[in-house]
Amino acid sequence: MEKVTEISSLGEFGLIDRLTRDFPLRNASSILGVGDDAAILDYHDHKTLVTTDLLLEGIHFDLRYVPLRHLGYKSAIVNFSDIYAMNGHPRQITVSLGISSRFTVEHIDELYDGIRLACQEYGVDLVGGDTSASVTGLVISITCIGEGEEGKIVRRSGAKPTDLIYVSGDLGAAYMGLQLLERENRVAAQSPDNKFFEPDFTGKEYILERQLKPEARRDIVDMFAQYDILPTAMMDVSDGLSSELLHICKASGVGCRLYEDRIPIDYQTAIMAEEFNMNLVTAALNGGEDYELLFTVPLAMKDKVDMLKGIRMIGYITKPELGAALVTRDDQELPLKAQGWNAFNH
Amino acid sequence: MEKVTEISSLGEFGLIDRLTRDFPLRNASSILGVGDDAAILDYHDHKTLVTTDLLLEGIHFDLRYVPLRHLGYKSAIVNFSDIYAMNGHPRQITVSLGISSRFTVEHIDELYDGIRLACQEYGVDLVGGDTSASVTGLVISITCIGEGEEGKIVRRSGAKPTDLIYVSGDLGAAYMGLQLLERENRVAAQSPDNKFFEPDFTGKEYILERQLKPEARRDIVDMFAQYDILPTAMMDVSDGLSSELLHICKASGVGCRLYEDRIPIDYQTAIMAEEFNMNLVTAALNGGEDYELLFTVPLAMKDKVDMLKGIRMIGYITKPELGAALVTRDDQELPLKAQGWNAFNH
Repeated sequence: MEKVTEISSLGEFGLIDRLTRDFPLRNASSILGVGDDAAILDYHDHKTLVTTDLLLEGIHFDLRYVPLRHLGYKSAIVNFSDIYAMNGHPRQITVSLGISSRFTVEHIDELYDGIRLACQEYGVDLVGGDTSASVTGLVISITCIGEGEEGKIVRRSGAKPTDLIYVSGDLGAAYMGLQLLERENRVAAQSPDNKFFEPDFTGKEYILERQLKPEARRDIVDMFAQYDILPTAMMDVSDGLSSELLHICKASGVGCRLYEDRIPIDYQTAIMAEEFNMNLVTAALNGGEDYELLFTVPLAMKDKVDMLKGIRMIGYITKPELGAALVTRDDQELPLKAQGWNAFNH
Repeated sequence: MEKVTEISSLGEFGLIDRLTRDFPLRNASSILGVGDDAAILDYHDHKTLVTTDLLLEGIHFDLRYVPLRHLGYKSAIVNFSDIYAMNGHPRQITVSLGISSRFTVEHIDELYDGIRLACQEYGVDLVGGDTSASVTGLVISITCIGEGEEGKIVRRSGAKPTDLIYVSGDLGAAYMGLQLLERENRVAAQSPDNKFFEPDFTGKEYILERQLKPEARRDIVDMFAQYDILPTAMMDVSDGLSSELLHICKASGVGCRLYEDRIPIDYQTAIMAEEFNMNLVTAALNGGEDYELLFTVPLAMKDKVDMLKGIRMIGYITKPELGAALVTRDDQELPLKAQGWNAFNH
């Protein structure tokens, strides 16, 4: 039988000790971690970057099909991604948890296993947090602190007309992965012997992994440094390409043209959209949770940027009066709309 | 009629725009605030301090007797207090909210009014956050970033035998304020015409204010700088004096003697404890939420420290083998126990 430990048997401080003991500090900038009123960080002449995300059960995740380990990993990754999106590097996180009475210590250990793995893979230190009971469900709040080099931090507001728009990886896969998980969950719930129900995910591993275990694009930020490329604007794609591109246009005071036929989409995403009878481009434009990097570079940098692997040019920046539009395959211009994931209409 | 705006009518980004528009950046270290993937901070040669707190409805606050404005204020203050407890100064906060459907935009405005007031009074900048729907209740997660001077940051771990133990202000008042609010709430619920029930809080203003609108002890940290005093260890009293003193002893590897008759207690706190037939010293030792500063200084500094206003010497640090004990009025030594507020046994 699996070991089950009531959280109240450890108490708040016992739980914190247990959860945080296997998080060695890896960064020279982490002077003092967990265990005092505040963590102490030192960035010398670099700038500090701060981002935070709140994840609530029933809104951002469904534990019927998201393993706690994956949830922990993803909770950390979404924060790292925000720091990379500034052309910086994540260095520290604080993790706050609200835990309802249906969770045991072993559950929370699993969640922390995922957080630990993400910290290991991305070289990030856990330096603090807050742990409490919750009336209903699991609450995860993570704040990530990173560093950026003076003059090399990339905001959303620097895109200029004639800049080219690039995106890393492919889009829409995480969203199709979610559709698949939700369908299998419905099927399992209806199955009389759902205890023995084992969905066949063969050939769908990629979209599932994109949903359950996304990665942050450190490799892209590393390539920028290696090849001395500085984007004019950058964001990570968490709410969907349309929504993010409109954010860049608004912050930069510009318009854009996005080519429908250049949006990168994986084969499995396309197959799945067909199976669900969904519009593939809509899924890729509005799906969200891809955690790819969307960025703009000056036209003069095109040759240099095109040599980078794993990115694709998808459009260009225009003067503001031209607005933001999608250029369809048959050369029509449709106004770009943000139908991005909105937690308040969920 | 009061204006009522559904949160879904603004959407996530509309709500964020509305909530964050009246938070001007006040600190030179706040390079970029709300509106990008991450905030940008710059501390030059100072150290960065980070602390975070998660407040959950039904666990940490009860909206039947805590006005949202006060809740916002207090949520910010408890974080500032953690930074002061390191002998640092709070500079930035990020605020994440989970909001259930029973809250309107006006409710959240009230909460932010309190946060704004706290930021104004303590000179702190709001630089980011995350806002989302929640399935049940209100979730508030605040992370505070501060700065500390190299060599002057005070941890919990520096207390040495023969050091004197001091505490600012008085203890137990916030706890008695909570008892009073809970009692009035029970009375109101039983009253047939509870619509018109107006509790009389005359003469109890102090303990109510300590519970509803606590302050962080910036003045003490400023005095340390002014008089060139550097404590050897420091914490803020959020879980109760016993619990915090034991934390310092554990982190510093020392014991302590705490004089019962020196614990500072306000007159209203004493009256209220009598009214509730509670042990006054137990309330002062374990009550929590006082947000006073508990610190130790070398014996040689006594004369200098005794000149500071609003603090009191309450005991001394011993060798570890002597353990942590309360010295009662009749000179008995009782082992000091942490019965501090534990969210998991609530």
